[in-house]
This record gives sequence, structure tokens and C-alpha cells, in this order.
Amino acid sequence: MTFTAPVADQRFVLDHIVNLNELAKNDRFAAASADVVEAVLEGAGQFAAGEWAPLDRRGDTVGARWSEDGVVMPEGYREAYQAYVEGGWGTIGSPEAFGGQGLPYALATAVLETLGGANMSFALAPTLTVGAIEALTHHGTGEQQRLYLPHLATGEWTGTMNLTEPQAGSDVGALKTKAEPLDNGKWSIRGTKIFISFGDHDMTNNIVHLVLARTPGAPAGTKGLSLFLVPKYRLDAEGNPGTFNDIKVVSIEHKMGLHASPTCVLSFGDNGDCIGELIGAEGGGITAMFTMMNNARLNVGLEGVQVAERATQRAVAYAAERVQSARAGSASRDPVRIIDHPDVRRMLLRMKAQTQAARALVYYAAGQVDRANLGDAEAKKRLDLLTPLAKAHGTDLGNEVASIGVQVHGGMGYVEETGAAQHFRDARITPIYEGTNGIQAADLVGRKLSMDNGTTLNALIGDMRKDAQGEALKDLIDACNSVGEYMLSAGIDDRLAGSYPFLTMLSVAVCGWLMEREHRAVDAAEMSDFAKMKRASTRFYGDQIVPEALGLKAAAVAGAEILYAIDPENFAA
Amino acid sequence: MTFTAPVADQRFVLDHIVNLNELAKNDRFAAASADVVEAVLEGAGQFAAGEWAPLDRRGDTVGARWSEDGVVMPEGYREAYQAYVEGGWGTIGSPEAFGGQGLPYALATAVLETLGGANMSFALAPTLTVGAIEALTHHGTGEQQRLYLPHLATGEWTGTMNLTEPQAGSDVGALKTKAEPLDNGKWSIRGTKIFISFGDHDMTNNIVHLVLARTPGAPAGTKGLSLFLVPKYRLDAEGNPGTFNDIKVVSIEHKMGLHASPTCVLSFGDNGDCIGELIGAEGGGITAMFTMMNNARLNVGLEGVQVAERATQRAVAYAAERVQSARAGSASRDPVRIIDHPDVRRMLLRMKAQTQAARALVYYAAGQVDRANLGDAEAKKRLDLLTPLAKAHGTDLGNEVASIGVQVHGGMGYVEETGAAQHFRDARITPIYEGTNGIQAADLVGRKLSMDNGTTLNALIGDMRKDAQGEALKDLIDACNSVGEYMLSAGIDDRLAGSYPFLTMLSVAVCGWLMEREHRAVDAAEMSDFAKMKRASTRFYGDQIVPEALGLKAAAVAGAEILYAIDPENFAA
Repeated sequence: MTFTAPVADQRFVLDHIVNLNELAKNDRFAAASADVVEAVLEGAGQFAAGEWAPLDRRGDTVGARWSEDGVVMPEGYREAYQAYVEGGWGTIGSPEAFGGQGLPYALATAVLETLGGANMSFALAPTLTVGAIEALTHHGTGEQQRLYLPHLATGEWTGTMNLTEPQAGSDVGALKTKAEPLDNGKWSIRGTKIFISFGDHDMTNNIVHLVLARTPGAPAGTKGLSLFLVPKYRLDAEGNPGTFNDIKVVSIEHKMGLHASPTCVLSFGDNGDCIGELIGAEGGGITAMFTMMNNARLNVGLEGVQVAERATQRAVAYAAERVQSARAGSASRDPVRIIDHPDVRRMLLRMKAQTQAARALVYYAAGQVDRANLGDAEAKKRLDLLTPLAKAHGTDLGNEVASIGVQVHGGMGYVEETGAAQHFRDARITPIYEGTNGIQAADLVGRKLSMDNGTTLNALIGDMRKDAQGEALKDLIDACNSVGEYMLSAGIDDRLAGSYPFLTMLSVAVCGWLMEREHRAVDAAEMSDFAKMKRASTRFYGDQIVPEALGLKAAAVAGAEILYAIDPENFAA
Repeated sequence: MTFTAPVADQRFVLDHIVNLNELAKNDRFAAASADVVEAVLEGAGQFAAGEWAPLDRRGDTVGARWSEDGVVMPEGYREAYQAYVEGGWGTIGSPEAFGGQGLPYALATAVLETLGGANMSFALAPTLTVGAIEALTHHGTGEQQRLYLPHLATGEWTGTMNLTEPQAGSDVGALKTKAEPLDNGKWSIRGTKIFISFGDHDMTNNIVHLVLARTPGAPAGTKGLSLFLVPKYRLDAEGNPGTFNDIKVVSIEHKMGLHASPTCVLSFGDNGDCIGELIGAEGGGITAMFTMMNNARLNVGLEGVQVAERATQRAVAYAAERVQSARAGSASRDPVRIIDHPDVRRMLLRMKAQTQAARALVYYAAGQVDRANLGDAEAKKRLDLLTPLAKAHGTDLGNEVASIGVQVHGGMGYVEETGAAQHFRDARITPIYEGTNGIQAADLVGRKLSMDNGTTLNALIGDMRKDAQGEALKDLIDACNSVGEYMLSAGIDDRLAGSYPFLTMLSVAVCGWLMEREHRAVDAAEMSDFAKMKRASTRFYGDQIVPEALGLKAAAVAGAEILYAIDPENFAA
């Protein structure tokens, strides 16, 4: 099945949800003219469909393989990655000073969506590189930026994030990897990191690892962590990759999906010869990490959009071809395409609506990144509030849509050759990595609500209330408001007990608000396929999906009492 | 991880939901004394945990393999199957006249749950055999019953259901396999069937295929279908497997999960030498098939319970061991077991509640099978109404719980070695086979509501209303009532458009009703682990899960207009 970049909807969302033309009025984004945006979206779509999409299935069946000499990517990946670098597809949002195009982050988001729609596991390489670019841009020295950023911005080198360790999982404060100071101001790194996506591969001549480690005498917990820049090959005097930096790929994981993305166990400094540089201040690792992770979280939310779009395209194509059974109640007993059966069409429309909703949510958040970068403090706060929503709800929707995609295929959906199953398997990691969705929910009701005692939430609710027209949406916004108030007064256990239902309610409210805006933005007289579908998908969302979220209110305010009325050992009964 | 049969809950549900002791008052089930029930449940649990559960992972990693000489099961399966036959675990519910134990179907359901909890794909072999037994019991001749039933009842031979063909999928009326009459009253069978679970294997010395085929001059559509008994090896004069019956295993599918269950393409009569016998009347195939499929649908719903139970046990074990992060808001900074974090505990309690609800639903329906078999016409109608609910909602819950199980494991859940991923992959077929869940929903709002103009639904709603105490449950029952009325007056497209949300609402209402009954059945003073968990899980269900289903009402009555406001080609936009 061919992949087609959803350029029309990307353009529509950039126009009406991100308000890209408003951003382009700013000098910094002046290059983002309508023509350029169109050219970038179309070009990325052609590149991704032509070069990356055809490798997606081989990536799944062959997968990245471990060898003594490092990870070997499936055939064709090396060339397709080079084509990506040469096409400049990684440079869209990177600073012009370092060879980037300096275009809005929201536009780079659309390009990354297209790449990942074509090949989700492949797109993880650029996704992680963005994190490294962000960390160096905000916390790197001028020298570090000069030496590394141009190569990262183009994608000539890839970046990784090295957080997790066997004993630590999501508990970053428990990390043990050590950094010992050397005479030359650099550091000797020693420790083992796990779950390192694209921790090794053979597509570039260097890999830039960003590694959280503990310096001597540092306090316990997260305050004792510092972030280090640890290249796979140290740079020589000319800034080119030179000496191997004693980083061993111990193994790669055998995962349910995302097989073209090698998930590595990396051992740093087995021979005492792994050298890193401090990024930012000693003890400032957690701050730098959050810079790196925040946009990574948006980009994982974007993976939900990617897989949802691809799964929807595949299901639509199948349903429009597969002929089976006459329409119930029809005079004709001729079998019809399954897309004509009501419940199949309901599934497909739901897939479209959820995919578009996820896109609106993530792009809207991406637009806040641009506004925050322009110095808009309110946009920064809104971004902080929306990040857990975009990550968790975006990935939840990716999983829901991928699962419906399997269902539309019937028995063929369970057979691997069809491809629907791969999306279902690939999608399942996204609610887990970059902070599980449960951690996103905790972040929402913890840090994000506490940071200003609900002011940012109230501002969002105020904006939504001003616009909302559907009765169900109004009710949902009211419900979010009252749950928000409950959360601010509740104890921490009660907050956390209701955090996930609340996150979902609030996410659906935001999506409902944005989908209503989209509905109003379609000219009622326009009869293009896109306009017809957009009118239907936005109406479906408001009429059928928004009301569902109202059903979550009871759980959001149920409190933790029920959870601790039982003891852990009762679960074995 | 070891598997433990959920004997306490099985016993509890048999006592309080199925009312097994009431059934045992009937002569036919007099053998089902409390002692016998206890012994059967305990014995099945020990057998399944000891013999079948240890093979589950090998079944996934090695899988059933195709060879020229037929399908080869993974090492150990042959022996474990023989142990099952010798232990008499297949005979629980089979008629005594044919070597069975004649115990209630509900008890056989509990045993099958245990077998499938231990090894879901393995348990599909006995599950399909039950369908063959049912078809022969109700439609076979005395001779057919005498020759085949004793071997099927013990499991000495397995049974299969051969419906689907490449061009037909769920559209049984489009089948093309042909049966030509022979001189001796038998039939020559020719055609290709796909998606035949356990269509071949090396565990028994015969396999009894039940094959839908078309006789010469038969009308088009389902009315022209007849059901044939087609053994892999024809029986010789002594009734033993003799001549090979010209049934070729063309290939097996490469599936996302359920790897120990070979899904075969079977070619009947390639050499013109495949002989079958008619079961029931010529043209009565669809009737016989429904006999076979109805209980098969319950048993697929039961697979939802199986995988939910296993996934829950695995997640609980992991969460009770894995230590990570201090409790939020706690004075202590010591990391705790993740089961102690509120959102993890919420996930686990949800898994418990949904698993118990699915069990209650499926067992309750199984109890109606027994009552129907005793001649209770109302029970038969209720069974007919509940079958699509048990199949669709049971499997939806199996998928939900398996997915939460992955989530509880965090990153380890995505790594295959942990086992959580297998349950997630295995579960995904269950909403598809034996009639997709969409087809179940269509059955509910079509045949099941139309059969008596809603009388059976109203009787169920009346029973639920009499008992319901929780406000949310009362509201949900009212909502089901009004949606039911809407469905009876709506056109077929509108019914179908809302069929799936309605099926879910009604299923949750039934589960909510049964969980309330369970809540009241626990002695408030009892402090066992089981009683504590049951009080919490039933309360959680009523307080948090029941309200969610209310959110589906808008979709249930939204109608089909929105679906046909768009054309198929609009989906490509």
C-alpha cells in the first residue's frame, strides 16, 4: 500500500489552528511564506512516500540487527537516511546559524509527521536528534554548538538521549552512571544505559550521546545529575570523528514492534577510555534533560498522529476494495465494498476524526513552542500545560486508531503480511517511552497545575469557553473546570488517582475545541473531498467523541480511598 | 511467571451468578455437588498450571510449523494434549452417553477458562472441538454420534469449523465449496477453506472437520448451504481412522499472535477423493452452523476472560516486585514497589474489575445454556440476547486488560521476553474471529432485537432495574432502555450506526448489575484477600466503569446520516 502525506490537513491545521501566517509576520519566521510552507509539505510528502515508506515493512521483518561491530540497519536504510540528510529534511526547524532553515517548529513538526507516517521507527532517529539539538542550543557552550550543532542540524550525525539504567526506569534520581573529572576539563564516563533508541546504527559516521551521569560528591537524587555530551567517536582537531570513544553496544532488545529502531544497551567506559563534556552547569542535568525531553514528548505525541494517519490510510484503502456482503436492508443482494457498511464506515470516520484531533492537538502545542521561542510567556505556560496532553492523548489515539485499523481488516488484519498488525505493534510503545502516560498524567495534576495554582488551566478553559458552541463540549469544559478545581484542593493521592481520567477529559475538551474551530474554518460551500470529510469528521468528533469523555468525570474525582482500601497482597486473590 | 487458576472467583461466580446449586437440584446435573465442583476447579487449575502454562511461551516463540506432511506442533504440545485427554478435562460438559461427565456447561466453561488462561492458543483446540460436539449432538444421525462423539468428547480427536473461503470472509452466503452426492449416500467434497484454526496438527490420530458446502442445484446465498462431516482419515469398519481423506494443508498464516494455534488453508478433494457425510438436512447448513457457532461465540468471549486473567496475574506479580520511585507526597524518599503508586494501583484494580466483570458476563450466559438445555425457554432467549454481548464485550475487555498489562510493565512490557506483549498480541484476534465484534453488534440490534420486538431485552432490563442500587447503574439501565426503544423504531442504517456503542452500554449495564450482585454476596465481615478484593473491584466497577458507558449514549442514537453525508472517495482526502 502506498503512503500519501496528508498535506491538505497539515496545511489546514497550520493555517487555522497554528495560525502560521501570524507567526510568519515575525521577522524570525519571515521565510515561512505560504509558498515555502506548501513546497516544504509537498516536498517532504514526496520524499517520504518515495524513499522511506517502501522500507517500512522490511524494517519490521528484517529489523535492526546487533553484531560485534555495532548495529546493522536493514538494507536500504543507510541510503534512505543519506537522502534525508541531503534533502535537508532535518534542517527545517534548526537555527540558521548552524545550517538550519530556521523555519517554525510547527512546520518542522508537520515534516516529522510525514516522515514518521511513512516509516515510524525510522523517524525516531531524527526525532531523537532534535532532543540533542535542543539541549545543545539552550545549554551548550559556544564551542560545543560550533562543533556539534551543524552536524546534528543536518542529520549528518544523529543524537541520542541516555537516561534509563537497569535499576532506575522512570526514576531518574536513582541513576548511577559516573562522571569523573579529567585534567583537561573533560570527564571520564562509566556506566550502563538501557533502552537507548538508535543508540547505535551504521547510517552516519558519528553519534552524539547525551548522557545523564553523577559527578563525584554530588548529592543523591536528581539534583546530583549532570548532562554530558559523549560522542561515539571523539572529534579530532578539525572537528571530524576520530578516536573510538569506548562505548560498547552490549545488546539490542527484542521488541513487539518498532523493529527498525534499535533499542540498545550501551556500556560507557568499559576500558576506562570514554570521554565526555559537561553540558550546562554541574548538577544542572535535570534542567537540561527537561529541555531535551519536553519537545521529545511532543514528538512522541506526534508519533501517535503518524501511526494513526498511516493506519487510517491503510484501512480506508482496504475497505474501499474489499467486497463482502450486501447492505443490510437493501433490496439488492449484491455484495458491496465494506466501506459501505454502516459499522465499517463508522470505524473509518472515527479513525479520521481521531487522527485529525490528535494532529490538531499536537500541532497546536507545537505552535506554542514557536510563540514561546518568540518570547511569549503565556504561550510557554500553555505549552507546559499541553505537553502531557499531547504526549499521552496523542499516543492513546494512535493506539486506538491502529487497533481499529486491524479491526477493519477483519481476519486479514491479524495476518502480518497485510501491514495493519505492524502499526498496532509499533504504536504500543508510544504510551510508554518518554515518560509513561501515567507519568504525564501525574505531571498534569502535579507540576503543571501546581506551578501557578491553576491559572494556566483556567486561562485555557476560559479560551475554550469563549469559543465553544456544542452543548456537549460546553458540558465537558465545565466538567474539566470543576475537576480542575477539585484537583487543586485534593490531596496528592486523590489527585493522582484521578489524574489519567482527568488528562483524557481535558485532552478531549481541547481537541473538541480545536475541531469546532476547524469546522467553522471550512467554507460551507466548498465541495472538495477534503471539505466534505472535514465537515463530517469535526461534527462526528463533537457529537460522538466529546460526550464519551463526560463519562470519565466520576473516575476523575473518585479519589484514592478505594485504591488503598486494599493491600498489595489482596491482588493475588 | 507461574499461572494460578482463579478458583476462588470461579467458585464465587458459579455460586452467586450462575446459581450452580440451583442447577444441581435438577436430576440431570445432580452430579454437580459442591465437592465435585471444587474438585474439578482445583484439579483443572493444577493440571493447567502444571502442564499447559509452561508451554505458553514456547508456543509463541516456536509456534506451530507447516511441513509437507502436515502441521508440527512445538515440542511438548503432543504430550500435554495427551495428558489433557487422559485427565478427562475435555469431557466435563459432554453427554454421559458418549463418555462425557454430563456436568453443567457453566462448569465446563470454568475449566476451559483455566486451560486458556494457562495457554490461550492451545485451548483453542478443545474450544473448537466443543463446536463440533454441539453440531453432532443436535444435528447428527445416531450413527454419526456413535462413531464420532465419544472420540470428540474425550478430545481423542479434535474438531474444526470450516466456514470461511478466500472470497467470502464474514459473508457465509458467498461460499463456493461443493458437495456432490455419491452412490453410497455420502458426498464428494471439493473446495478451499481459509482461517481454519487447528485445521491440522500432530496431536491426535484424527481430526473431524465440519465443512459448509453447497450441494448441486442448491439456491444461492446461505439457504443453499449444507454442513458436512469430513474426517481427516475416514473411519474403517471398526470405526478407527483409516484411509487419508484427501485434505491438503496448503499453508498456515503468519499471525501477530496465537502462534501455537495453526491457522490453516485447507484444500478438500484436490484429487477428487475427499468424502463427507451430511449433518442434518440438505440446505440446513446455516442452522447447524449457528448451533456450532453460538457456543463458540461464548467461548471466544471466554478467551477474553482467559487473557485478561493471565495478563492481570502477570502485571500484579511485576508491580509487586518492581521497586521504583518514592511515593509522591511521602516523607520517605525511599523507592517503593510500583503497586504502591496510585496510578499503577488504579490500573491493576481496573484490570481486576474488568476481568471479574467479563467472567461474570460470560459465566452468566453459560448458565443460560444449562437452563436452556433443561428446557427453560426464557433462558434460551436470554442466552440468544447475551451471546453477542459476551463475545464482543468479553473480547474487548480482554484486549483492554492485556493492553493495561503492557503499560504496567513500562518499557519491559514492550520487550517480548517479559510475556506481557504476548498476551497483547494473542488477545487481538478475539474481537475478529467467530464473527467480528461489529457483526455481533449488528446481530444484537438486528436479529436479537427483532426476534421478539424487544421483549427479551425488556425482560433483562426489568430484572436489572429490580436489583440495581447504584445511581450510575440505574441511569445506565434507563439509558439502555431508551436506546433500545430507539433501536426498535429506527431504520436499519441508524440501528447499525449505533449498534456498537449500544452493545457496549448494554454489556456494561449487565456487568454492573452482576458486579452489584457479587458485591452484595460478599459477607461484610469476611476479611480474606478474596473478600477484600471483591468488595473493592465491584465498587470500583460501579463507581468508575459504569459511568463511562453513559458517555456512549450520544453515539448510540446519533444515526447514520453523518456516515453517509460523505462518500467513500472523501476518505482519501
